[in-house]
Amino acid sequence: MAKGITPRAEDYSRWYQDVIAQAQLADYAPVKGCMVIRPNGYAIWENMQAALDRMFKATGHQNAYFPMLIPESFMTKEAEHVEGFAPECAVVTHGGGKKLEENLYIRPTSETIIWDMYRKWIMSYRDLPILINQWANVVRWEMRTRLFLRTTEFLWQEGHTAHATEQEAEEETRRMLDVYATFAEEHMAVPVIKGVKSDSEKFAGAVRTYCIEAIMQDTKALQAGTSHFLGQNFAKAFDVKFQDKDEKQKYVWASSWGVSTRLVGALIMVHSDDKGLVVPPKLAATHGVVVPIWMKDHQVDDMIQVGREIHEEISAAFPDHVFRLDDRREYKPGWKFTEWEQRGACVRIEVGPRDAEKNQVVLVRRDTGEKEFLPRADLVARLKDLYPAMQNDMFEKARQFRETNTHQVDDYESFKSGLDEKGGFFLGHWDGTPETEAKVKEETKATIRCIPFEDNPEAGVCMVSGKPSKQRVIWARAY
Amino acid sequence: MAKGITPRAEDYSRWYQDVIAQAQLADYAPVKGCMVIRPNGYAIWENMQAALDRMFKATGHQNAYFPMLIPESFMTKEAEHVEGFAPECAVVTHGGGKKLEENLYIRPTSETIIWDMYRKWIMSYRDLPILINQWANVVRWEMRTRLFLRTTEFLWQEGHTAHATEQEAEEETRRMLDVYATFAEEHMAVPVIKGVKSDSEKFAGAVRTYCIEAIMQDTKALQAGTSHFLGQNFAKAFDVKFQDKDEKQKYVWASSWGVSTRLVGALIMVHSDDKGLVVPPKLAATHGVVVPIWMKDHQVDDMIQVGREIHEEISAAFPDHVFRLDDRREYKPGWKFTEWEQRGACVRIEVGPRDAEKNQVVLVRRDTGEKEFLPRADLVARLKDLYPAMQNDMFEKARQFRETNTHQVDDYESFKSGLDEKGGFFLGHWDGTPETEAKVKEETKATIRCIPFEDNPEAGVCMVSGKPSKQRVIWARAY
Repeated sequence: MAKGITPRAEDYSRWYQDVIAQAQLADYAPVKGCMVIRPNGYAIWENMQAALDRMFKATGHQNAYFPMLIPESFMTKEAEHVEGFAPECAVVTHGGGKKLEENLYIRPTSETIIWDMYRKWIMSYRDLPILINQWANVVRWEMRTRLFLRTTEFLWQEGHTAHATEQEAEEETRRMLDVYATFAEEHMAVPVIKGVKSDSEKFAGAVRTYCIEAIMQDTKALQAGTSHFLGQNFAKAFDVKFQDKDEKQKYVWASSWGVSTRLVGALIMVHSDDKGLVVPPKLAATHGVVVPIWMKDHQVDDMIQVGREIHEEISAAFPDHVFRLDDRREYKPGWKFTEWEQRGACVRIEVGPRDAEKNQVVLVRRDTGEKEFLPRADLVARLKDLYPAMQNDMFEKARQFRETNTHQVDDYESFKSGLDEKGGFFLGHWDGTPETEAKVKEETKATIRCIPFEDNPEAGVCMVSGKPSKQRVIWARAY
Repeated sequence: MAKGITPRAEDYSRWYQDVIAQAQLADYAPVKGCMVIRPNGYAIWENMQAALDRMFKATGHQNAYFPMLIPESFMTKEAEHVEGFAPECAVVTHGGGKKLEENLYIRPTSETIIWDMYRKWIMSYRDLPILINQWANVVRWEMRTRLFLRTTEFLWQEGHTAHATEQEAEEETRRMLDVYATFAEEHMAVPVIKGVKSDSEKFAGAVRTYCIEAIMQDTKALQAGTSHFLGQNFAKAFDVKFQDKDEKQKYVWASSWGVSTRLVGALIMVHSDDKGLVVPPKLAATHGVVVPIWMKDHQVDDMIQVGREIHEEISAAFPDHVFRLDDRREYKPGWKFTEWEQRGACVRIEVGPRDAEKNQVVLVRRDTGEKEFLPRADLVARLKDLYPAMQNDMFEKARQFRETNTHQVDDYESFKSGLDEKGGFFLGHWDGTPETEAKVKEETKATIRCIPFEDNPEAGVCMVSGKPSKQRVIWARAY
């Protein structure tokens, strides 16, 4: 610990790795592309899970668990789905010492096995809707991996719902997109843009994919969550019909939606700084660290005792928060400060012999570095105000960053030079064709991140082809 | 729903399957030996997870996540471990469309990959202890499977700890056994016997395996949790050393411990009855159902309204509990009663037009079937007493069942006839040899469930060989 972190300006990619290493969030695993999520990183994921799970249950969903192993024949039932996912799969060919009669795929996503079960469970309109979510691991074979953002195995949740009507399924799809956006903004303090993906970027097997898109500090985009309207594609592939109130047999309508441990990567990339990890209070693994300070040996025991008392006071006042007392005798205060900054403790509370005499403490915010002296008796009240303020300030800072780095662009040349010179989100017109999208991707590596929801979209002409465009879309280079 | 359940006395195994099917706890999956955990079953597992996770954290553990895919070469590093687990593994040979250079095993347990990481993380005594737990899925290829009790893929938690001294590792192993016993008795209401496994039943790679053993209603035993003292076996296999305070390099000491979704099977087998599922309140998915009753059409809306008010009152009084209002108009009360009994709702609250007039409700306990009339205004207070009473009564009933079905036995003939005639736990002397154990297993299918912890063990002579025995052990047929 307490080694250096490469500054963002010098090498953003190295900075990201250094932050993860110094905060002990994750580590590379012996199997290529896999990661170990260490306790400090897993605690953030657990906080995310808890908040999301509450939101899912509040919107009527129940958790369940479906097997990880999917027969090869299932994968091939939905034509677009198999084309999109089969090449990325890990394949089990042997089990119990024998070659299997049929190969099994480790789930890359669970639509196929879930819709096979839904066929057994759904008979009548009375069995609908089914609103199920699962927390699980999935495997997608990846060539170029990056801790949290893209790993061969990752953790996620996947919602899979079944409905009697198209409208209900569409409403569910949009409702869960809203849940994701609320979670991103109110818990992660990450502003997102909601919209729909272009056809070439949609989920393999979906009719439409909705998404939330966020901007990272290097101005690249990151897709933070997706919600898919699946129409009747999987119901038809798996022959899932129900008897409706009118006694007719109809195919079931579907949605699926997911977010993953990639969100931990987004959180790091949006808020952290050259000193290390910064996490908003609602998701932090450590809400504060108390560091007692001493100058002379005879002060050590007394100061540790004062630190312990302060730790107990704030722990009692915030039972859901995690506070640490750093009473290690072998390290100097400055070394401890650096370590806890790297690890993303929301605040540091210092107390030295002179502070103790005056009954005061020193409070240092992790996000801004601001330092204040205050009476020890006021600490709890101050923290009660400070945490929501930090949460809000971090969101606001990220929102301003996005604003500064979002550019309106009307011609392709300005777009290309802007992308290279400053990067960011570019609001430009698109003619709606996959050919234009492919040309831009080929020439600039930028893609359409989403077609944002707009009440009164401004029509115009495509920045590339000059053909008519219904509205501006968001172009950016992305993770 | 509301189909019949085979009585226990007629066919215990069918009864178990019927309870699971009618309560919609789980379903067979298309891949042989795998199961789908349906929302009603998963809710029980979530309640188990929440309680255990709190207990793990209260004893200083942190959660983390290690990859599911383990290189074949890792499995072979610990000799006993590979012998025990390799034949049960599912093997990934292809990924991303290509044959892999090295086969990957889906984890049957994670000692190998975790100790490979611990080698990187442990340098000095300052890095110890490491107290990590992981919630995960594992795969063990099984020939004969049974929902929850033995499935090819199952969910579990696995704790993996690293210590500087043998004593610390041993203390940790025993501490977690105690946590499991407390959980089984206080949350599951399942009495357990703590003890140590004989060498032939211990975990492949452990020095000693401790376990908790429970008795099912068919008098068979079920191992409900294990905690392993691993000595330095994995540290030596993966070369994990630390520099101690005396500056010497030493191998690290270890424990591992786990419980799985098998506990849901144990819960069903201990408490449920011929009407269906019975779950103690601390783990129940449904703590109560309100069933409004009407005789005539004009009463329907009023009675549903009364039911809704009662549902709101009790939901507000028990925010952590789940209550349901069964306001379905198309089903008769009797049909609903049967359905909720099958699904294991802890209590049923009936209210009909005459009850409403008198401001009273009918309260029916699921575990005993006892029915009482009480003023609606007293309902919340009554439930506050009733839930702990049910929890306690269910434990006591199970404890008495075990007592009735535990027999002291001194000669092999009585043991064999007792086992066939009445079954149960048999306390009999054992000479400590694997030969005697193997002979008994071969001849009776009974095994040593555990050598129970006893302060003053009674010495004697082995019921089979007549050789000296240090103490009685528990013999039984087991799941």
